[in-house]
Amino acid sequence: MSKPGRFIVVEGLEGAGKSSAMATIRQWLQQQNISVVTTREPGGTPLAEKLRTLVKQVDSNELLAPETELLLMYAARVQLLTNVIRPALLRGDWVLADRHDMSSRAYQGGGRQLDEQLINNLRSTVLGNTRPDLTLYLDIDPAVGLSRAAARGELDRIEQEQLDFFVRTRQKYQQIAASEPDIVSIDASQPLDDVQQCIVHALSNHFSGQTDD
Amino acid sequence: MSKPGRFIVVEGLEGAGKSSAMATIRQWLQQQNISVVTTREPGGTPLAEKLRTLVKQVDSNELLAPETELLLMYAARVQLLTNVIRPALLRGDWVLADRHDMSSRAYQGGGRQLDEQLINNLRSTVLGNTRPDLTLYLDIDPAVGLSRAAARGELDRIEQEQLDFFVRTRQKYQQIAASEPDIVSIDASQPLDDVQQCIVHALSNHFSGQTDD
Repeated sequence: MSKPGRFIVVEGLEGAGKSSAMATIRQWLQQQNISVVTTREPGGTPLAEKLRTLVKQVDSNELLAPETELLLMYAARVQLLTNVIRPALLRGDWVLADRHDMSSRAYQGGGRQLDEQLINNLRSTVLGNTRPDLTLYLDIDPAVGLSRAAARGELDRIEQEQLDFFVRTRQKYQQIAASEPDIVSIDASQPLDDVQQCIVHALSNHFSGQTDD
Repeated sequence: MSKPGRFIVVEGLEGAGKSSAMATIRQWLQQQNISVVTTREPGGTPLAEKLRTLVKQVDSNELLAPETELLLMYAARVQLLTNVIRPALLRGDWVLADRHDMSSRAYQGGGRQLDEQLINNLRSTVLGNTRPDLTLYLDIDPAVGLSRAAARGELDRIEQEQLDFFVRTRQKYQQIAASEPDIVSIDASQPLDDVQQCIVHALSNHFSGQTDD
């Protein structure tokens, strides 16, 4: 039986540099000859991508209730875990994810201040035993991140929230990162080269001795 | 301030006669000069109707995980409660619903045998204090109901389940109906006239003295 794969997640606010980080990690994995499945959340399966569209679109005709948002995020997540992430890990592939569960805890738990007991209950049912081996959290001041995101083009429904929403989201991100050992926090306000170095360092450090067959 | 409205739900397996029951109840409400908002689940708002389509469509390319189905049902429900049902009740309108929370308890809890703790937690968060004043549960043998539903045309994804799924669903329906006082169980195998009489009797009985302004 092949060795089970590893699960790496990139997290952070809009404009933190998640796409660059994903590229750096993909490159590092290629250098180690590791085959990798890339996902994003919400999304990553045909149905979950439809849910992504529903959650992100700005629809002035219908308010999206905060609880609806939370449940759609977990519906998309369980679909992705069941149909993509778990089968890949079982095959021995590595999985590289642009956002995962930490986003819901930060955005819906911190930003929207939704009930923590419900979120914990959803987590334990939806995630089961599938937890990331390593999460790279790119920490950025929301004002800086949002101006970067705005420069990229039109903002989606969630990105149009007020600054204090993102301040609460970042606080929750930092709180979780400080309390869980498999999350590495990286200062995303540094020059890109330095951020990339931190990412490669975290990967080598975390997976040392695990990448040779 | 106007008197708050009442919330009536019709429940039962496929082919139990929910549509006829809805018509009988609408007629009775008209006779009492009560203005009524009619809803259906999953659905009843533009977003929730999109979720209905996702849940009901038969897609051979992607398995819908049972937990995804459950979360989409509650996402659609909280959307409907927030944007339609609660505002209507506050205005003093009555709400008549083709399916509500009892369906998830019966189909996802009984039929799919999903974790009861998660369902209870979803219920308390999503429903809050909004509970039906009266639920009319139309009880039917699944074999009879399914053959009626099949005669109507093509079956959707959930209606294509095996018989034992519906046997478990009915058992859960009956269990809930037996234990909660605001649920009236009606034998839906009777001739239509008798079923209608039972419905009118239940309405008159339950709302006696409440319908005169």
